[in-house]
Amino acid sequence: MPFAPLANDSFLRACRRQATDYTPLWLMRQAGRYLPEYQASRARAGSFMGLATSVDYATEVTLQPLERFPLDAAILFSDILTVPDAMGLGLSFAEGEGPRLAKVVRDEAAVAALAVPDMARLRYVFDAVASIRRALNGRVPLIGFSGSPWTLACYMVEGQGSDDYRLVKGLMYSRPDLMHRILAINADTVAAYLNAQIDAGAQAVMVFDSWGGVLADGAFQAFSLAYTARVLAQLQRTGVDGSDVPRIVFTKGGAPWLQDMQSLDCQVLGLDWTANLASARALVGGAVGGPGKALQGNIDPHVLLAPPARIVQQVQQVLDSFGPPHTDRSTTGPTHIFNLGHGISQFTPPAHVAALVEAVHSYSRAQRQG
Amino acid sequence: MPFAPLANDSFLRACRRQATDYTPLWLMRQAGRYLPEYQASRARAGSFMGLATSVDYATEVTLQPLERFPLDAAILFSDILTVPDAMGLGLSFAEGEGPRLAKVVRDEAAVAALAVPDMARLRYVFDAVASIRRALNGRVPLIGFSGSPWTLACYMVEGQGSDDYRLVKGLMYSRPDLMHRILAINADTVAAYLNAQIDAGAQAVMVFDSWGGVLADGAFQAFSLAYTARVLAQLQRTGVDGSDVPRIVFTKGGAPWLQDMQSLDCQVLGLDWTANLASARALVGGAVGGPGKALQGNIDPHVLLAPPARIVQQVQQVLDSFGPPHTDRSTTGPTHIFNLGHGISQFTPPAHVAALVEAVHSYSRAQRQG
Repeated sequence: MPFAPLANDSFLRACRRQATDYTPLWLMRQAGRYLPEYQASRARAGSFMGLATSVDYATEVTLQPLERFPLDAAILFSDILTVPDAMGLGLSFAEGEGPRLAKVVRDEAAVAALAVPDMARLRYVFDAVASIRRALNGRVPLIGFSGSPWTLACYMVEGQGSDDYRLVKGLMYSRPDLMHRILAINADTVAAYLNAQIDAGAQAVMVFDSWGGVLADGAFQAFSLAYTARVLAQLQRTGVDGSDVPRIVFTKGGAPWLQDMQSLDCQVLGLDWTANLASARALVGGAVGGPGKALQGNIDPHVLLAPPARIVQQVQQVLDSFGPPHTDRSTTGPTHIFNLGHGISQFTPPAHVAALVEAVHSYSRAQRQG
Repeated sequence: MPFAPLANDSFLRACRRQATDYTPLWLMRQAGRYLPEYQASRARAGSFMGLATSVDYATEVTLQPLERFPLDAAILFSDILTVPDAMGLGLSFAEGEGPRLAKVVRDEAAVAALAVPDMARLRYVFDAVASIRRALNGRVPLIGFSGSPWTLACYMVEGQGSDDYRLVKGLMYSRPDLMHRILAINADTVAAYLNAQIDAGAQAVMVFDSWGGVLADGAFQAFSLAYTARVLAQLQRTGVDGSDVPRIVFTKGGAPWLQDMQSLDCQVLGLDWTANLASARALVGGAVGGPGKALQGNIDPHVLLAPPARIVQQVQQVLDSFGPPHTDRSTTGPTHIFNLGHGISQFTPPAHVAALVEAVHSYSRAQRQG
């Protein structure tokens, strides 16, 4: 069944470094706990995984932020830990706590037992992608995603979130051979997972290297970047409707390594709030007519806790920091996709999000009119 | 009473960008829980603050790592929260948890009540400095320290450690005027605190901007860096024995802002493990004969969890990354003080620290012999 044609292609155009009438935006974790309607859906579903594993709930919550705000992209509602779960590590979410894996991968035997899982175990994700794409009906494009090989490995070794990554780093420094084996399996799994999302209808894909920034210089390149590159090399270039599928890589804390990330075979680099957009544009954004990466980010999500007038100021600072938008429709050039530097906080008032979205659209239109 | 002359000045020479026979090293939190003798002292003292507020205990534990390892500097045993405690915010350490402040600073009234505290309330710290300096008897120099104005503000607003700094960032974005007021008071307090440590015998001082790295680009410069600069501007240049007192600034997560930190009026910049030492040297290390900053850091403390043979490899990588040492004793040049990129983990086997110290000294001597 063919999908509806796209009414708002500003996000995909910006991914391709094509000029747009305004700076498109979406928000990491835009379908989330800050929305009362999300809380209501989650209460009905009984749990986070109840939402994520149900095609209908995943579709419902993915679309919720789009009903409130004129965002320029939707992102699949899911969790990066669906992958270790499919590997048989047993994912659970205890109320009021973060996710937890029942089994951990810390020794030779556990690593030997790892394999790329049958993608059929993740069918609920691909069904959700197809359902969301149909429900979007061409309104905005749908982004699929996965955790990066390194970020998945952090959870697989630690078993849960960590504040020091002691166990995964201990394994990495003590037994780099085992860590490379885990990462190779993760990379091939992530590639298969994203390809299946593309087959199901995803129009762009994003790799979340949420914990790449905890690595030391040198270790980042060897244990995170190299395996993100291994994922990208295996990704299908074309989606179900024959369009190209832009690839986005986001490393939280990755600002020191922007130059290293330039070599990644992706169209877009996501930036957290520590990055300076002007420097990033100069470093990797490319010239008009030349190659380069589109940039995505990077306002501090906690700006959204301030009153709307201050949010507007901060939005303008971020847009000004990126600098004059590329406006020549006859060629490619440096582009910016507005986003947060990390996921939205559950304590964000939805009215503040409305102020941010309106400020991004109106100020970026005004920038283009000079 | 004059202090004994210094037997090992390699650390101070490297701070001044003078050539040394080997790369000097010390370790952040070198007097800490990974040492059984520290655990024993703490058990006798009854608590962390029991150690920190007792001149005898603070002296005892400061010297413990020097008895085991040929480190090139000692650092005052204390905690950055002594300052908010002296401001009347009420510090406590619950067993098995981090530090906590009884009062928090989150509104106009609490900010209005803040003032630079009488340094007499911190007399136990200055007495400890003098006692440690005497006990060192010229063996190695003694480093005094303080948290940065921003890092202290994080604790003063949050009341404890945080994983998202939501409250302090919320205040900063909503009421920048209040945050600037807190930071100005903190800066003047930190300057008075460090000057009193210098008067008591500290031979170098270090500002720990442990939480500067959580700030967004722009906010870092306005809310952290500017107030570290305000501290540095007020510091005495000369110690009790007439020597210059090098100033070290360490921002955890500060790698994206190294160029901004170049303008700080300090001799040494501390780097965490995300920084590339070769790039940092090129950016701020300066040329032989020209101005520049000495660099301190930056091995990942979790390297110390690996077997000694791997620790040696990683030490060599860090030393090689800094590159050829400056050896011309007739002039200044780029220098490196080896350290961890953050505090040592309590799970570190002391024998692994011995391997690291030996590797730094022997490999860096060999580097100098070409």
